[in-house]
Amino acid sequence: MSVTAQEIRLRSRPKGWPDDDTFEFATVELPSPGDGEVLVRNTFMSVDPYMRGRMNDVKSYVPPYQLGKALEGGAVGEVVESNVEGTSPGDLVLHNLGWRSHAVVSAFTKLQPIEGVSPSRFLGALGMPALTAYVGLLDIASFKPDETVFVSGAAGAVGNLVGQIAKLKGAKRVIGSAGSAEKVEHLTSKLGFDAAFNYRDGNVTELLAAEAPDGIDVYFDNVGGDHLEAALWSLNTHGRVAACGSISTYNEEKLQPGPRNLHLIVAKRLSIRGFIILDHGDRFSAMMKDVGGWLADGQLVVEETVVDGLDNAPAAFLGMLRGENTGKMIVRL
Amino acid sequence: MSVTAQEIRLRSRPKGWPDDDTFEFATVELPSPGDGEVLVRNTFMSVDPYMRGRMNDVKSYVPPYQLGKALEGGAVGEVVESNVEGTSPGDLVLHNLGWRSHAVVSAFTKLQPIEGVSPSRFLGALGMPALTAYVGLLDIASFKPDETVFVSGAAGAVGNLVGQIAKLKGAKRVIGSAGSAEKVEHLTSKLGFDAAFNYRDGNVTELLAAEAPDGIDVYFDNVGGDHLEAALWSLNTHGRVAACGSISTYNEEKLQPGPRNLHLIVAKRLSIRGFIILDHGDRFSAMMKDVGGWLADGQLVVEETVVDGLDNAPAAFLGMLRGENTGKMIVRL
Repeated sequence: MSVTAQEIRLRSRPKGWPDDDTFEFATVELPSPGDGEVLVRNTFMSVDPYMRGRMNDVKSYVPPYQLGKALEGGAVGEVVESNVEGTSPGDLVLHNLGWRSHAVVSAFTKLQPIEGVSPSRFLGALGMPALTAYVGLLDIASFKPDETVFVSGAAGAVGNLVGQIAKLKGAKRVIGSAGSAEKVEHLTSKLGFDAAFNYRDGNVTELLAAEAPDGIDVYFDNVGGDHLEAALWSLNTHGRVAACGSISTYNEEKLQPGPRNLHLIVAKRLSIRGFIILDHGDRFSAMMKDVGGWLADGQLVVEETVVDGLDNAPAAFLGMLRGENTGKMIVRL
Repeated sequence: MSVTAQEIRLRSRPKGWPDDDTFEFATVELPSPGDGEVLVRNTFMSVDPYMRGRMNDVKSYVPPYQLGKALEGGAVGEVVESNVEGTSPGDLVLHNLGWRSHAVVSAFTKLQPIEGVSPSRFLGALGMPALTAYVGLLDIASFKPDETVFVSGAAGAVGNLVGQIAKLKGAKRVIGSAGSAEKVEHLTSKLGFDAAFNYRDGNVTELLAAEAPDGIDVYFDNVGGDHLEAALWSLNTHGRVAACGSISTYNEEKLQPGPRNLHLIVAKRLSIRGFIILDHGDRFSAMMKDVGGWLADGQLVVEETVVDGLDNAPAAFLGMLRGENTGKMIVRL
């Protein structure tokens, strides 16, 4: 069986913010799956901050997207045709060939559907963003009960889980920053954050200090820029920063100067540690045990911003970079 | 017995570089030592970068110097009168009341003089600078044999030991930066550095990259500023930075922006970790065993820049901040 599929390709490498020239829609005929392959109809795909980095032609931890080729990213789909033993049509799978309606894939994970839980969760609270939050907070930042945690991008896919996991693991206080009054309200009233602020309301250093009168012990950095400078001022002695991303800088055409207060790293014996979740697959089952349990008993609130249709995937991606999502940004196909 | 002593006080807090207004000479009558005290005639005193920080009125890991009071710092001296059991006149002691000819001290360490070794070594290669180099390289930066190490301020009290210890512990390549052609020559011809450059010769990023074609694994940061940016570009995946100090910034009146490439912390999974040697006294005996052994069998080259006379201590301090010393800067009283 061959299939006519739609896909979105990288037409040109963006300088600064991606725009209409960045993306190109194409129709392709997919062949039947070969040995060890399955043909999948994608039902959900993920748009994530790291994808912006892959649009640049620079060597990094994942290779750049190729010009004229379909983009890639996390997707969940239903097997249409299988040439893999133990996998049958109708099976639910997780794989990395998103940005298209169908895909022939050889590398995939068979998923066990969970009654009453949308398969899109495997792209969020039961997937890579959850593992990122879990490993970053517990392993990279060595969070301990009774500590105060600050997380930026707190309404985002990773940030909201960082805050909730910290509370569930016994944090004294969890503070989040986000980009709108609605998100701030949401963090404190729905997700259990002790405090939150809108970083557009003024100087981030002052906004954070006001919410952290006793300082912070852990900063989970999703945004970089002035948030990192603010966190360095507020961090207590022996404080730790988990450096997860710097979404505020991804669309800058020119590198911007960093924080002016790095001297505090010595004086306060701080550590800043970067991580990439691909290195930490060994923690997946521990995460699933904890997070799966909290999901099952309703202690963890999960939210998604869902955009419909492959045609709208570029807009969903840009919206996510602008912070228009609350929780994980998902495209439903 | 009372003694007439000379001491150097903090007259005013410097803005930017210290100058004549910063220091004040005074003569005081010291009383006989009380219970649990000894009267010491200082023979050597240390001038160190951290002292610049203590001249500012800011809360930090050590309290600021008090206006109108004598400065403090590491010193070695000879006991003149003792009210401490087990300590007698003539004993050699290490204590923290430098910047004066004599002192009445209650907190001191009795030293075992070493035949043929100047007591000033206890302020350098057998003291705090050596512990700083040892702990920073081995514990904070987790240096492993066959790695490439870059150290800034490489001709300084700590830097020269970092490079030598790295070589003695099996480094593949050790690269140092310093502020003159003479120092650079000295590092490679006398101290066993594989490469060195004069940071005044051009762009530090380019100078380092030229000497580190395969990148670096560890950066021992004594200077901050553009050296840190250069190191971030050159660091390999999973590279580590031991943040020991930022002497390039200590006399700045206004905080300067940091490196423009902190996004590499995530992409290369780097860690930057600050430390203060006061936290690591438990490693002193391990350091003494290693470094003492290398000193005894001549594998470690030790150098000092010695300035004579308490009157010249302010000039020695400023000279050290300007990088005029090779090896530890010592004032002989």
